[in-house]
Amino acid sequence: MLEDKNPSRTSLEQLGEFGLIQHLTKDFELKQSSSIMGVGDDAAILDFGDHKTVVSTDLLVEGVHFDLSYMPLKHLGYKAVIVNLSDIYAMNAQATQVTVSLAISNRFPLEALEAFYTGVAQACKLYGVDMVGGDTTSSTKGMLISVTALGFAKEEQLVYRSGAKENDLLVVTGDLGGAYLGLQVLEREKAVFKVNPNSQPDLEPYAYIVERQLKPEARKDIVELLKKLEVRPTAMIDISDGLSSEILHLCERSDVGCNLYEDKIPLDPTVIAAAEEFKMDSTLIALSGGEDYELLFTIDQKEFPKIKGNPNLTVLGHMTHKNEGAHLISRNGAKIPLTAQGWNSFTGNE
Amino acid sequence: MLEDKNPSRTSLEQLGEFGLIQHLTKDFELKQSSSIMGVGDDAAILDFGDHKTVVSTDLLVEGVHFDLSYMPLKHLGYKAVIVNLSDIYAMNAQATQVTVSLAISNRFPLEALEAFYTGVAQACKLYGVDMVGGDTTSSTKGMLISVTALGFAKEEQLVYRSGAKENDLLVVTGDLGGAYLGLQVLEREKAVFKVNPNSQPDLEPYAYIVERQLKPEARKDIVELLKKLEVRPTAMIDISDGLSSEILHLCERSDVGCNLYEDKIPLDPTVIAAAEEFKMDSTLIALSGGEDYELLFTIDQKEFPKIKGNPNLTVLGHMTHKNEGAHLISRNGAKIPLTAQGWNSFTGNE
Repeated sequence: MLEDKNPSRTSLEQLGEFGLIQHLTKDFELKQSSSIMGVGDDAAILDFGDHKTVVSTDLLVEGVHFDLSYMPLKHLGYKAVIVNLSDIYAMNAQATQVTVSLAISNRFPLEALEAFYTGVAQACKLYGVDMVGGDTTSSTKGMLISVTALGFAKEEQLVYRSGAKENDLLVVTGDLGGAYLGLQVLEREKAVFKVNPNSQPDLEPYAYIVERQLKPEARKDIVELLKKLEVRPTAMIDISDGLSSEILHLCERSDVGCNLYEDKIPLDPTVIAAAEEFKMDSTLIALSGGEDYELLFTIDQKEFPKIKGNPNLTVLGHMTHKNEGAHLISRNGAKIPLTAQGWNSFTGNE
Repeated sequence: MLEDKNPSRTSLEQLGEFGLIQHLTKDFELKQSSSIMGVGDDAAILDFGDHKTVVSTDLLVEGVHFDLSYMPLKHLGYKAVIVNLSDIYAMNAQATQVTVSLAISNRFPLEALEAFYTGVAQACKLYGVDMVGGDTTSSTKGMLISVTALGFAKEEQLVYRSGAKENDLLVVTGDLGGAYLGLQVLEREKAVFKVNPNSQPDLEPYAYIVERQLKPEARKDIVELLKKLEVRPTAMIDISDGLSSEILHLCERSDVGCNLYEDKIPLDPTVIAAAEEFKMDSTLIALSGGEDYELLFTIDQKEFPKIKGNPNLTVLGHMTHKNEGAHLISRNGAKIPLTAQGWNSFTGNE
């Protein structure tokens, strides 16, 4: 009524999620002396005293980020916390608090919300963080979750995306691709269930990858491990969108290139087996699957002896001069440019 | 598929929003030594050093909290920040940062989001806060906004809802009821517009109340004024749900009663005129309308000389022993129990 409903239109698909955030936030300046880092890393950095406060926030939308037909609400509450804690750990910081907000339609009974909060409470307990606030309201359709995580670190402990140097080693925690393949298994069983509601899926062979999708963990242990090993990464990011996309973030923010070796990418045997079953390329899944919530970081080469042989850590390659670009060195020695294949949330339809 | 879809059902309407939050968060304990206050006040309190960090978060849902047919997106961005800052000021703290997250369907063009963020930027600039993060994603339907605000205060400056004492004076800032009546005007014009899209509404006579609805302000100035006057309220809350509901919150948290005098409730002449036009009782609107984002606080009687005659502040009544309950003393001397008529977001349909 008071607004022109037909301004010139630029579609969101053209920009993609990262382009959009960058575009929309480019004119925001930081004015407070306590704001050390705003948009552009895994979390904001605030200065309220001896330590730096770290804040991260994520929005999860039903039908976009999760499907309640196979995601139990308890797991959803757990995962909503985990994905935010992962951002705090990706700053090499300790997570201390979360706020959890929920918008839900009236189709959800109280018991469903209780299940959700049970999952939130489990994650809080396991990771030693406090739930300190939130907002609960109704939605006109579906369920929407917003979580903000806070944490702290000493200034000299903080690790940004921007500190990687040429010749630094690229290191990843755990293994990759499981969460994406777990989703494929769940989608397949959902399709079977639609045709035959009496079917009893046998998910046992897929337990590991289904759990990677439904109940991921954040690598709090790695922050502690790095401290114990006295290794301070030069740059770090968590893997939410896929290895390829995260490497490109590190390269862009650090102004370097990267050589990633295909034969070094850590894959669980279940991932390899499931990839074969689904006739998918396991390297492509690791590069583009996302949602693994492992940490990806770079270290100076002289730190290598400290991490060598640690079963949690795999060296994937090394950073190069930025003019060399970012490449995958395949098993047969081909050099393939990395592209951001991270899941783009703006390609769906309304 | 993996979840029992027919557990026993308790409807959300039975609980209402406050009951729901209380119910869902009752089992959360605070474990971190830095968590001073979690759920249960306008904002959480965190301890990261000399000052206390204050965090508040709100979720706004299209079709529930706002109607884009008369809410310009720039105003919506502005208001989304304001409602959160108001919570920080209600702690007697300084607001310093916000994170702004947005879920939107593809029906919105980029220009709409730009308008939204222009409003966010305006609010940030005017209130001197930094936008330090957020998340932008797609929704399956409509628009959803989640804002988290952070701020800080010295421990001795913080004001909780729970500090009101018997005989304390109850004080409110500004005037009440405008935002609700502004909404009525906008709803009426929307109905007219549906019948005759060529109608040109004359909103000029309603400028004040429409602005109270579309572009409210948070009372940062009051936090500064109280500091200047050397008045530390014993308890404070912001008026988001209506005077009646907020008084009941103060009474419950402070374990006191209250006498509120009808003839003291500050009403703008535009509010009185519009209430007459809509054949509504202006006292009831002030009690139940909400969204005025004024501050409501209590002070020790001996502080009265410091605030006397200040045009920003109105003494509405006084706190009593809890056994006396909370009452409105009407113009004709009748004593009417106050009830929470604050807008209940769970009464809508899916």
